[in-house]
Amino acid sequence: MGNPLGIGLIGTGYMGKTHALAYRNVHAVMGDLPAIRLRTLCDTPQDKAAAMAAQFGFEHSSDDWRSLLNDPGIDIVSVTTPNQLHKEMALELIAAGKHVWCEKPMALTLADAIEMEVAARKAGVLTLTGYNYVKNPVFKLAQDLIADGVIGTPVHFRGWVDEDYQADPDLPWTWRARIKDAGLGTLGDLGCHLVSMAYGLLGPIESLIGDMQTVHVTRPMPDGQGHGQVENEDTASALVRFANGVQGSIATSRSAWGRKNRLAFEVHGTKGMICFDQERMNELQLYENSGPKSQQGFKTILAGPEHAPYGNFCPAAGHQLGFNDLKVIEAAELLTAIKEGRAAYPDFTAALEFEKVIHAIAESARSGARVTIEG
Amino acid sequence: MGNPLGIGLIGTGYMGKTHALAYRNVHAVMGDLPAIRLRTLCDTPQDKAAAMAAQFGFEHSSDDWRSLLNDPGIDIVSVTTPNQLHKEMALELIAAGKHVWCEKPMALTLADAIEMEVAARKAGVLTLTGYNYVKNPVFKLAQDLIADGVIGTPVHFRGWVDEDYQADPDLPWTWRARIKDAGLGTLGDLGCHLVSMAYGLLGPIESLIGDMQTVHVTRPMPDGQGHGQVENEDTASALVRFANGVQGSIATSRSAWGRKNRLAFEVHGTKGMICFDQERMNELQLYENSGPKSQQGFKTILAGPEHAPYGNFCPAAGHQLGFNDLKVIEAAELLTAIKEGRAAYPDFTAALEFEKVIHAIAESARSGARVTIEG
Amino acid sequence: MGNPLGIGLIGTGYMGKTHALAYRNVHAVMGDLPAIRLRTLCDTPQDKAAAMAAQFGFEHSSDDWRSLLNDPGIDIVSVTTPNQLHKEMALELIAAGKHVWCEKPMALTLADAIEMEVAARKAGVLTLTGYNYVKNPVFKLAQDLIADGVIGTPVHFRGWVDEDYQADPDLPWTWRARIKDAGLGTLGDLGCHLVSMAYGLLGPIESLIGDMQTVHVTRPMPDGQGHGQVENEDTASALVRFANGVQGSIATSRSAWGRKNRLAFEVHGTKGMICFDQERMNELQLYENSGPKSQQGFKTILAGPEHAPYGNFCPAAGHQLGFNDLKVIEAAELLTAIKEGRAAYPDFTAALEFEKVIHAIAESARSGARVTIEG
Amino acid sequence: MGNPLGIGLIGTGYMGKTHALAYRNVHAVMGDLPAIRLRTLCDTPQDKAAAMAAQFGFEHSSDDWRSLLNDPGIDIVSVTTPNQLHKEMALELIAAGKHVWCEKPMALTLADAIEMEVAARKAGVLTLTGYNYVKNPVFKLAQDLIADGVIGTPVHFRGWVDEDYQADPDLPWTWRARIKDAGLGTLGDLGCHLVSMAYGLLGPIESLIGDMQTVHVTRPMPDGQGHGQVENEDTASALVRFANGVQGSIATSRSAWGRKNRLAFEVHGTKGMICFDQERMNELQLYENSGPKSQQGFKTILAGPEHAPYGNFCPAAGHQLGFNDLKVIEAAELLTAIKEGRAAYPDFTAALEFEKVIHAIAESARSGARVTIEG
Repeated sequence: MGNPLGIGLIGTGYMGKTHALAYRNVHAVMGDLPAIRLRTLCDTPQDKAAAMAAQFGFEHSSDDWRSLLNDPGIDIVSVTTPNQLHKEMALELIAAGKHVWCEKPMALTLADAIEMEVAARKAGVLTLTGYNYVKNPVFKLAQDLIADGVIGTPVHFRGWVDEDYQADPDLPWTWRARIKDAGLGTLGDLGCHLVSMAYGLLGPIESLIGDMQTVHVTRPMPDGQGHGQVENEDTASALVRFANGVQGSIATSRSAWGRKNRLAFEVHGTKGMICFDQERMNELQLYENSGPKSQQGFKTILAGPEHAPYGNFCPAAGHQLGFNDLKVIEAAELLTAIKEGRAAYPDFTAALEFEKVIHAIAESARSGARVTIEG
Repeated sequence: MGNPLGIGLIGTGYMGKTHALAYRNVHAVMGDLPAIRLRTLCDTPQDKAAAMAAQFGFEHSSDDWRSLLNDPGIDIVSVTTPNQLHKEMALELIAAGKHVWCEKPMALTLADAIEMEVAARKAGVLTLTGYNYVKNPVFKLAQDLIADGVIGTPVHFRGWVDEDYQADPDLPWTWRARIKDAGLGTLGDLGCHLVSMAYGLLGPIESLIGDMQTVHVTRPMPDGQGHGQVENEDTASALVRFANGVQGSIATSRSAWGRKNRLAFEVHGTKGMICFDQERMNELQLYENSGPKSQQGFKTILAGPEHAPYGNFCPAAGHQLGFNDLKVIEAAELLTAIKEGRAAYPDFTAALEFEKVIHAIAESARSGARVTIEG
Repeated sequence: MGNPLGIGLIGTGYMGKTHALAYRNVHAVMGDLPAIRLRTLCDTPQDKAAAMAAQFGFEHSSDDWRSLLNDPGIDIVSVTTPNQLHKEMALELIAAGKHVWCEKPMALTLADAIEMEVAARKAGVLTLTGYNYVKNPVFKLAQDLIADGVIGTPVHFRGWVDEDYQADPDLPWTWRARIKDAGLGTLGDLGCHLVSMAYGLLGPIESLIGDMQTVHVTRPMPDGQGHGQVENEDTASALVRFANGVQGSIATSRSAWGRKNRLAFEVHGTKGMICFDQERMNELQLYENSGPKSQQGFKTILAGPEHAPYGNFCPAAGHQLGFNDLKVIEAAELLTAIKEGRAAYPDFTAALEFEKVIHAIAESARSGARVTIEG
Repeated sequence: MGNPLGIGLIGTGYMGKTHALAYRNVHAVMGDLPAIRLRTLCDTPQDKAAAMAAQFGFEHSSDDWRSLLNDPGIDIVSVTTPNQLHKEMALELIAAGKHVWCEKPMALTLADAIEMEVAARKAGVLTLTGYNYVKNPVFKLAQDLIADGVIGTPVHFRGWVDEDYQADPDLPWTWRARIKDAGLGTLGDLGCHLVSMAYGLLGPIESLIGDMQTVHVTRPMPDGQGHGQVENEDTASALVRFANGVQGSIATSRSAWGRKNRLAFEVHGTKGMICFDQERMNELQLYENSGPKSQQGFKTILAGPEHAPYGNFCPAAGHQLGFNDLKVIEAAELLTAIKEGRAAYPDFTAALEFEKVIHAIAESARSGARVTIEG
């Protein structure tokens, strides 16, 4: 098997922890995969890096992520830092020949994302972007049901992704409100996840018309001195046309009280319908126009071992996977791709397509005109 | 009290029956209202009219709806015929000085609806259009919650109205597929109901961008000879801006397998959210950002006697109203308006505003440009 | 057809109104049934009776229900008075040869119910008891699914019926708390409805063990002077064995906060399961062990025209019946039985079987021993 | 901190894997806890043990679990073998001074469980039993809501736990059907989990009356030669009385088609109600009798960081924990108890109380008499 692949992880926050847990669990859950060692954890300051390395089980810690670049013991690096740092890190890691597992969105601007994609493609390193929701066994079931014609030919799509972390008008202003630092608002945080699902279900979006709004246009400054401007969008919506001819709509809000992770979609087909809501991530709704009319209805399918790789986590249906388990499946995808010498999905090339869409929505919202997505 | 108001009813189908039942029940349910008598039921042929008059309890029957025009015993006429007949009937009835309760949509074209509205306004007769869903006590609760600030200031709206009566690609072609005979497709059948709710919650829509699609572009001819063209839309969607500054989206499909009456909306506010789905018409979802964070969640409120006029039907919460009960509330609105000498809601003037929106969606879908709704 | 059947109605409260509405609507909804006339409405005092007769559309009113006994124009009498009055009224009405539609429970004691059943049977008049929930088209669907073997052979049953009208400990004492006046507590108000459904699904219960409890043992007297004793049960539960060998459990509470009409059941079969909840009375849940394992799940079937007689109310699925519509179906059963010269269901004979069960639960709860239901 | 605690794990099946994952993750998730090393994994045959040790990250493997007894490097042993092996293993491990984390039920018979509890108590080792569902942050929320009086004083309890792994009548006979090998049926597999929740919510059950049934009394032998007898119960139900005066009912089935992990309960209180269903393990339903009547309803609370230790897994509400995460919380309880020098919960002493109840239900079902649980 050769030496274990050395893992570097940059960032120990929300996503950093999920990556660490994924690396810790992926072999125990999945079995036969290339061996790894948790080599270096990077964060600042150093004592935080050291403490988290101990907690997460990394051998080393560093307050200098660039120390990973020239470390021959590092093969894969997870980038889980704030979005504005992704580009610089990814480019240097790619240049150093490391495989990169980068959280989404890839970058603040489309130009940056394109630069990253080009660099990765040229360097021949493997990349993976953190579109974890498409790793849900229940999402795979939705894809299979479509592929198998269970709902016939898709004819319409609707999707939403809402949270409420910016719903409170009294929340203080942060750098997240500044386009220079944060890029897009809800489109970058949430909207791109929905696009990844739409693509997984129906393929590329060809064109769209969008609208967006900053609901809370100013926020109180944290120091209590006046109000700061919120530059990026709280809500965004678009009417989309897929390349396969299907029409639909997508919408996102970060100011939707009560929604905690409502990433939901409907696929309407000529023979049935599929519905999903991430807040009940272990369930899929399926309607089929078959059997006696008097007995037709939406079925609630509970995730179970028939929906791979659920069974690797638990042999009993209805016992449920959690959010962190999706990252384990992502990690397995990365290691499997390395093992098989193929691209991981979604790599920077695939992710770039998703991110084109969110930037196109913003562009259309500003111009008022239909925007065509260039493939 | 004077003589009872004489009722004429044109049409004995789906909606005709609901009007008949509403007239039969409205006094028993509501109590103090102007007296009525079920005078004349019109349908063709005469023997059908006679049979249904016997069933519904009308004194007379006729196969000539114009017989109502000069009958001084007729004060109110319900028009429940196919949509293409509404205009002619309404105009003549208005000219004859009758109050008119007309099913929605008012007419096939906006020009026709405008003509009807102008005629009614000039004649001074009372009109009511069959936007029954805004009569739901639970919808009134939603309006009250917004008015009382329970969800703060509304900031976003989403609405959908879907059914599956045109979902089966193998259904034969009918006149409903021809614009000349049927006007709009799902926008006219379903979409205008959603607009009536949006207006009831957030007031007028100022402008919109729309898209629409005929999903099943041809249908087999009933005689088995080839296929006929479907001219009007199976799905339609729009990004809307309300006059009050709120943005949102609305969408409708008549080809959505499994949806039987999914007329649903979300109103996002600065302090909470309201959600509703007509398929569970006795429930309202309410999220409030108040109390301990650990105890926040969407509440499912069951309709009950606190939600007038539910208590007129049943003194016990959770026992549920049905679709036909909404028409009783409509009938009560009409009779109350007559009693109080005021306009009924929604009369032709209000309904015209709803119907402008569906035509604007179609117009925008054809042109690709934003359409401003003229007030 | 002969003369219309003359209707007498005693009581104008909650149930009185539902009977009045049912009589008003039954022909318009159902069509071909024996004609009726709403002849006499009885309540006290006379002015209330007169006012309600006007509202409900009865020809006459009376403050003396016995005036119905010798009125040859009265054929059917609805008894919707408080339960302690049912027996006296029913016996005299039966003796006078009237058909009787009596609300449930038949009487305060089993002895009284037996006396009523015997009298009705001997007199040969037609009776109907107000077990409205078994008239739901969705309940009929459940029965059909079982009869057709869709869930295989039933193997287990669970049922609950809960409301919260006695959940508040601060509600004042009323006569309803006194056994002499009110008989059983939640078993009589709610429990017997559940038994009617259990019988409709699985046939007779053979034996049971029960337990019960008065949760709020005293209540403040309405005059503010001390507390009165609550003599009857707030909750009751039983482990039951059906004659067909199926075991199960049933439970009821009138002190269950948040439950407004939660009359719910599960039937477990060898091939599937059926679940129902009256708070969503237009839905039935069905699980079938068939098709691919990966696609199995509980289906939510929405009531529609395939579920007779839903289509008599509305031709479109998902539009929903309400509570009052169930009484229309009851009225149709009564008139159809008269027309066909057969017993109505559930008549006093059938209802007596239901009510034996609730008395058996109370008996078992007191004795601690298993009680066999005598057929 | 001294040396890391050495972990031994016996069994690599369903539960063995969950223990392995829990040990792997607990520090990374929870932070400050005594250090551990995954020392020895035991299973048979040896090559399986070795393969799973590699997969799970254990240093050693063995096909002889007794090798753990005299290994001074082993401090804690997880027993995840079939139930009939628990007693022998636990007794020897306890005698060897090891802490024991044993899956539930403790043993096939109450006598065996008592013997285990006495041994552990005398030896002074720490024990933990695998009642994972009481570790759910949402269950802790339910406990807190009761303790804080949010639903007032509890007055009634209902619980169910159903799965369908024995629902198919055609499943072949296994040793699980033989009392000698498997002990109780659904009561041992599922029922005891429900009891653990009932105790966590309302304290000890004082007495009960039970009933039970073997639904599928024979099953085809795996070799196709005739049928074998199923000796233990497929369903069981009981009417219970808690020591605090609350009455209620509990029921379980392993033959309930469609139920995958329906471990559900309702706690009725004087001011509100709490409902839970493990199939939606990240949700709690709460009804409070407070605020305007017109706005009351059941709230669906989504698990989030306010519900410790959810936040250790994920800082964002609504993102969901999975089944395996509950075992991480269990592992943390064990290590925390060791660190703090206190008993873990639920240890053998607590678990014995739960298991008394399931044996009491079986006893009562056989005798027909009420059984008092001896404390």
